[in-house]
Parts: sequence; structure tokens; C-alpha cells
Amino acid sequence: MDITVAVDAMGGDHGTHVTVPAALRFLDEHPDVNIVLVGMPDAIEAELRARHRTLGPRLRVQPATEVVTMDEAPQSALKNKKDSSMRVAINLVKSGGANACVSAGNTGALMATARFVLKTIKGIDRPAIAKMLPTRKNTFSCVLDLGANVDCTPQHLVQFAIMGAMLVSATRQQARPTVGLLNIGEEEIKGNEVVKEAAELLRRSNLNFHGNVEGDDIYAGTVDVIVADGFTGNVALKTSEGLAKMIAEQLREEFLRNWWSRLLAGLAWPVLSRFKKRVDPRRYNGASLLGLNGIVVKSHGGADRMAFYWALSQAVDEARAGVTQRIAEQVQQELELLAAQPAAVSPDTPLA
Amino acid sequence: MDITVAVDAMGGDHGTHVTVPAALRFLDEHPDVNIVLVGMPDAIEAELRARHRTLGPRLRVQPATEVVTMDEAPQSALKNKKDSSMRVAINLVKSGGANACVSAGNTGALMATARFVLKTIKGIDRPAIAKMLPTRKNTFSCVLDLGANVDCTPQHLVQFAIMGAMLVSATRQQARPTVGLLNIGEEEIKGNEVVKEAAELLRRSNLNFHGNVEGDDIYAGTVDVIVADGFTGNVALKTSEGLAKMIAEQLREEFLRNWWSRLLAGLAWPVLSRFKKRVDPRRYNGASLLGLNGIVVKSHGGADRMAFYWALSQAVDEARAGVTQRIAEQVQQELELLAAQPAAVSPDTPLA
Repeated sequence: MDITVAVDAMGGDHGTHVTVPAALRFLDEHPDVNIVLVGMPDAIEAELRARHRTLGPRLRVQPATEVVTMDEAPQSALKNKKDSSMRVAINLVKSGGANACVSAGNTGALMATARFVLKTIKGIDRPAIAKMLPTRKNTFSCVLDLGANVDCTPQHLVQFAIMGAMLVSATRQQARPTVGLLNIGEEEIKGNEVVKEAAELLRRSNLNFHGNVEGDDIYAGTVDVIVADGFTGNVALKTSEGLAKMIAEQLREEFLRNWWSRLLAGLAWPVLSRFKKRVDPRRYNGASLLGLNGIVVKSHGGADRMAFYWALSQAVDEARAGVTQRIAEQVQQELELLAAQPAAVSPDTPLA
Repeated sequence: MDITVAVDAMGGDHGTHVTVPAALRFLDEHPDVNIVLVGMPDAIEAELRARHRTLGPRLRVQPATEVVTMDEAPQSALKNKKDSSMRVAINLVKSGGANACVSAGNTGALMATARFVLKTIKGIDRPAIAKMLPTRKNTFSCVLDLGANVDCTPQHLVQFAIMGAMLVSATRQQARPTVGLLNIGEEEIKGNEVVKEAAELLRRSNLNFHGNVEGDDIYAGTVDVIVADGFTGNVALKTSEGLAKMIAEQLREEFLRNWWSRLLAGLAWPVLSRFKKRVDPRRYNGASLLGLNGIVVKSHGGADRMAFYWALSQAVDEARAGVTQRIAEQVQQELELLAAQPAAVSPDTPLA
């Protein structure tokens, strides 16, 4: 099946300088993908001319006259920029003109606009942001929510679990991905009430629920999907980014310390670069906005061409696997299952 | 000033095999420190004999007949093991027989027992767990709470801020450490209500409040003290441990891949070992249970001798710097300041 991706060409810190070359490379390497570059035609065409490329049946431009800035308030973008490249790209998904869209623009505006235009899947209260992170087992854990929802109910966490499981099952060909609930390990205080209740609901669901996991399980590969509220998930992700940066810097400093260590760095270059490639965050770029009636992938704002390429790849994988449909079906199944189970009533519960 | 440290000799995964040799090395290197080994005399003395060491004025044994197991419920330890090595070590701090105590035992039991025996400092509602983490600036950030308190009020977070700031100011000779509140960066949803209100209170305090920080600021060294509820803090810490382990493993794998990379690893050993030393988590072992009337340091349960040595060092630093007294004084100052400020009342607030 041919897949068409709408690209917010103006989004991110580098706009068309990153999005257009990444899209061109992606087109060259994926003959069954079409791309619609959404944004200001002049900027896009200048970038194409500089690369001696032209439009054609697989590469179109959809004009948009406005750009959402990186620090713009989501509500302002939603209200005042109805012809932004971000909004027009999402409109294409809504109208069926594209199977997915990718933006490196402001996350809050992207989420608000996508939610407004596409609406959430029936049975999903709130969309969530999910990302695949690498593990020690050379697998991936899908972690969500990464910041869209600060305060979550147990039901929200269950919905995130369904969305994450369907993302993994559809794009990674895993029939029954295992799901873990992010919690803390102190004996005295096994998590807050929301997490406890979510665990109870997950145990009664159709999902392959593993139980509680802790922060270190993200990178241990203990489960395929790790569910958290958006506050905790965001802190885990950002903390990881900060630590990885510190470790990379310290390794670099030690290899640049003197002429002998520099010589060794030169000799060890193939080893160090293989290592670097394994931990390169660009390979994991592309967070999925799940739970919407359509596929929206958020690239890191500071993404370079290679990183943006990976975000495109994530969007195409999701479109090809029919992630939206998979989530919608699973949510319906879970709702039916829960409706069929009488809620556990303790004998001490007074009748209202 | 001579410092006496009570060591729970039986605690941790390795008990006396780790605690006793670490204590001996610490005594050898710190002539102004005395140690009381608390636990079963037979086990302690066997360990001393194996090392050809004897008791003396700087090294005593305080017998205790019970041991809290690593998976024991805190309330059970508190109720049933009144003569545990952990409890007797804490009792020594209470009675003035020691200036601080260190245990590698079960965190929940240690916190519950320490809180029961020592009580919290006046003005502090709940103790918190704090740890110094390394930063890219080669400084440390003190992060708390790391898991003692899942659900926190804004007032609790302010108390954590005071405790962390006093720990840093006392042990790291920084007059006015900067304090950040761990939050998330999405435009739409700058943190939950608790964090917002805590920020308001911190702005009105005597502390050097920097404002919100994100997960990556922990390792960027943006501020000296980072305050979070225990759920978020614990997830940040455990996630870091997991990621560091994954990165170390992958670096090792790349250097062990073939004979050439192994040869390079041999040649680069001085470089790699300097790097390893910088990121070695053992150097950061020793979490402080702050807010109690006495100094209690928790070592990682799996600590080896070197790691336990660093936990002893943390305890001695805190005792020497009078951290407990510093926290008590600062809490009183803050309470007086807050009492002097009329609470901000919006004109719309209905009078009760």
C-alpha cells in the first residue's frame, strides 16, 4: 500500500533546511511513499532548487501561509493560525489527503491542534505521547505518556496501556506485548492510589499486564510498554536525555585529555562510532501522538536531517500498520469486557 | 571534633563482609572518626579476626540480637524487631552515643524506624531521602525526595527545599545554594497544582529559588538542589541507574567485539578507567534521610566495600557540618517569615 505523509515543512528550529532534505532522502529510499510538503511555497521551492530537485507525482507542495512559532501558546496557535503549516498538515490527515503527518513544531500546539481537528478515538478520553526507547536487550520499550497529561485517573492510565500495546503490536509484530505500570519500589509505599487502582483495572483487562515496574526497567527491557502519567513520564525522558549527554561529554573529555588519549581515540574510532550509533538519540526521534483519529508524529524541535528522517519512518510504520484502527478496535473490546464484569463490591461497602 | 558513627553491620545484601572491611578502611584513613559496629558479635568478630584486627577505643561493638531482612515490611520490623542491628544503631544516635548512623538495610524499615525513634525536626512534617548526583559541570545536584513520600503537598515540597539547601550549604560550603522545582516543559501544562503552589511559596521564602527545572537539569548542574515528590524523584533516580547500566554495557560490548577492539581497550585502559571512575555510581552511594533529629544515611543494599565507604563518608560529612541543627534553624526562620507575610487573598475569594 502506498503511504502519503504530510510534512509540516516549516516546523522545528531549522524549518525547511531540515524537513525538505530529510523528506527527499526518505522518498529516495522508500519508493512506495509519497510526501506532501506543507508550508510557504517560496521557502520550500528554494530548498528544492538548491538540491536540484523538482516536484512530481510523489512530491507535492500544499501551501500554508502561517507558521506556529516554537514558543507560541497552544490556544493562540489554535485560534489565530488557522492556515499554519502545522494545521494544514493535520487537515490533510483529517481529509484523507495523507495517511499521517509529521511536525517538529511546538508540542503543545501540535497536540492541541491535532486533538481539535482529528478528535480522539471513541473510548479514549485524552491522547498521549509515546516514544520507543532502546533497551539492554536490544529491544525497545514504548513509554507513555511523556507529557501530554499531568494529572491522570486510573482509567486514563488504562487507555494509555491500550494505546501503547496496540502501537507495539502493530508496528513491531508482537502479538501480545507485555505492559508494565511505572511505580516505585519502596516497601512502605507501593505507589499512589491512582497507580494502585490502574493496576487493578489492568489485571482485569485483556492486555498482557506484567505488573509494576520501576524506572530502571525502562532500559532493562523488562516489558514492551511502560505506562505512566505525563508528569512522571516526561521527567523520566528528560532525565535520561540529560544523563546521556553528561556521559557522552565525559567520555569525550577523557579521550581528548592528552595526545596519547587522542591517538587512541583515532585508532578506536570504529569502535567508538559503533557505540555512538547505538546510543544516538536521533535514531529514536519521533514521538507518537496516540489516541487520535489519525497518525501524528512529533519530531524533536532541534532535530537534524537524520533525526527528522527517523520521525518520518515512525509515521510511515504507523500508517502501514493501521495503528489508529488497532487502537479503536482494542478500546471497544476493553470497554465491552469491563462492562461485562461487575465492579468488585466489598461486603462492607454501604449501599448508597 | 571527633565523630562517632554507628554502623548497622548486619544490613545490606552482604552484611558484615562489606560493612566491617569498609569501616576498618574508613578508620584507617580518618583518625578523628570512631566507629561502633552494631550487630551480632560472633559475625562481627569473625570478620575482624579474618582481617587480623581487634577492637579498641576507636572501634567498638554494640550487640544486637536481630536482623531486619531486606524484604521485611517496615511495620513488622518496627513492631517485632526491637533489638535489630538497625534499630540499635539508630538508638545510639538518639542517646548521643553516636553522631550519625549508616545502614545498607531495607529503606522502608530504616525510614520507619528512624522516624519512630528520632522523630522529625520541629516544623518538618515528613522526612525525605536526598542524594548528591554528579553534573556536567563537575558539581553535584542534591535531589530529594527520592521515594519516602509519594503524595506531597506544596508545604512538603517547601520543607524538602529547606532540607536540601541546608544539606548542600553545610556540607559543600555554599552560602546560598540555588533551588529548582522539578517540573515539565510543555507549554500547555506547566506542571500540576501542587508544583505551581510550591513555586509560589518558594518565591516568598528566604531560599535562593531559581524556579522550575526539567529532568535534564539534574545532570546539567543548573541548580544545587532539585525538589520533587518522592514518586517522581524515585523514577528519575531509577531511570538514571538503568540508563547508565545500559550505556556502560554497550560500551563494553563494543570494546569486546573482536581482537582489534580488545587490543584497543587494553591500550585505552587508563582513559577508559578514568571515565569509569567519573561515572562510577559507588562514588555517589549514601542517601541522606533528612528532617530527622539525627543523621541517618542509607547505603545501597547491594553496596560493595568501596560504595559503603562512601556512605560512611557522607554520614561523617553531615555530622561534622551539623546538618540537623542547620535544618532546624532554617525551618524556624522560614516559619517566622511565612507567619509574617499575610497569605495572598484574591479579591474574588469569598469570605468563609
